Amino acid sequence: MTPTITAFEQSPDRGKGLARDMRVRWALEEVGQPYEVRLVSFSAMKEPAHRALQPFGQIPTYEEGDLALFESGAIVFHIAEHHAGLLPDDENARARAIAWMFAALNTVEPPILDLYTAKLLEGDKPWSEQRLPLVEDRIRDRLGELSARLGDADWLDGAFSAGDLLMVAVLLRLNASCLLDEYPNLLAYVARGEARPAFKRAFDAQLAVFTGKPPTG
Amino acid sequence: MTPTITAFEQSPDRGKGLARDMRVRWALEEVGQPYEVRLVSFSAMKEPAHRALQPFGQIPTYEEGDLALFESGAIVFHIAEHHAGLLPDDENARARAIAWMFAALNTVEPPILDLYTAKLLEGDKPWSEQRLPLVEDRIRDRLGELSARLGDADWLDGAFSAGDLLMVAVLLRLNASCLLDEYPNLLAYVARGEARPAFKRAFDAQLAVFTGKPPTG
Repeated sequence: MTPTITAFEQSPDRGKGLARDMRVRWALEEVGQPYEVRLVSFSAMKEPAHRALQPFGQIPTYEEGDLALFESGAIVFHIAEHHAGLLPDDENARARAIAWMFAALNTVEPPILDLYTAKLLEGDKPWSEQRLPLVEDRIRDRLGELSARLGDADWLDGAFSAGDLLMVAVLLRLNASCLLDEYPNLLAYVARGEARPAFKRAFDAQLAVFTGKPPTG
Repeated sequence: MTPTITAFEQSPDRGKGLARDMRVRWALEEVGQPYEVRLVSFSAMKEPAHRALQPFGQIPTYEEGDLALFESGAIVFHIAEHHAGLLPDDENARARAIAWMFAALNTVEPPILDLYTAKLLEGDKPWSEQRLPLVEDRIRDRLGELSARLGDADWLDGAFSAGDLLMVAVLLRLNASCLLDEYPNLLAYVARGEARPAFKRAFDAQLAVFTGKPPTG
């Protein structure tokens, strides 16, 4: 059965890979699962029909037969659990890959989202300029720790996993700042993720919503 | 095999249920799995030996034979996957419970953590007083949506699950503010979680680290 996901009809980044449907598209492309996309406007996202699927009025959602899911992390996990390629077979390695999924979303993403809040929601406040360096330093703390753990490995724990997929997706949010430049191994790690054919297909498909051009390849 | 978790030797809240080992203790108590605790000082948390287990220098960690895990969400999931009682048997209901786990940690917790940052790390800044209402309003947005979804149900989706466990644990962080008081059904939801015998055992065990009194019961 072909699943249907939701995505922004109008995305703040104009389809440059930052909206959270990108994570789900990428996971579906990694496992070779075709999918349908239903675009949702900002106003429709806040209506009861969408909130029945997504209580917080956000995208993406995932519908497959009787199953309706929300939260990109949970959707990526569901895809990883039902297809080969995103979680290791070895039981301990699988548990560790899941730990990296949670680390991406609960430890690394929150300080990065704080940067968005500081710039987009509080950029016009009198404290904005003074506060920004504090926000950036909290991100640096996490990036330094992540960089130390990654070292010169290709991926966080053995082969590419759903943990890497979510971590790369989270780090991509820093593309508009120069923070990643301070950690060459993390820059290379993100580039390695972006170079995956599945990433490119997902990125092109998301971008095509905004350019109106069909994805290549 | 008895797993070993790590917890704060000195916790900022003096063992009042807010440190993240509480979530893991609670899950272990729900499923009836005994566990050992190794206390870690703030300085030891930042040393290479602990960072080998927890790259971000935090607690809790989870060791069981050859397996070493970090991230409280991942540890709770591991426990839920290997014992009955925290995830439904029905496959779709299980996926939805996992969605609530991610929602607790990636959608509801980040704005709540921002309140901690605002009070503890930026409480002495000149913008603190002016900024706090914005931070609180972002929490209210999430609480309002969560309250609307919960309605008059006991738990978020059918029976108590690991999703409720993490959501209650995240909402408990608001105990020091009055924000939850504005949502009576969420207050009752948190109280329902705290009333569970497994919660009480976990809470007493965490508190006993600081009072030196053995947990009752």
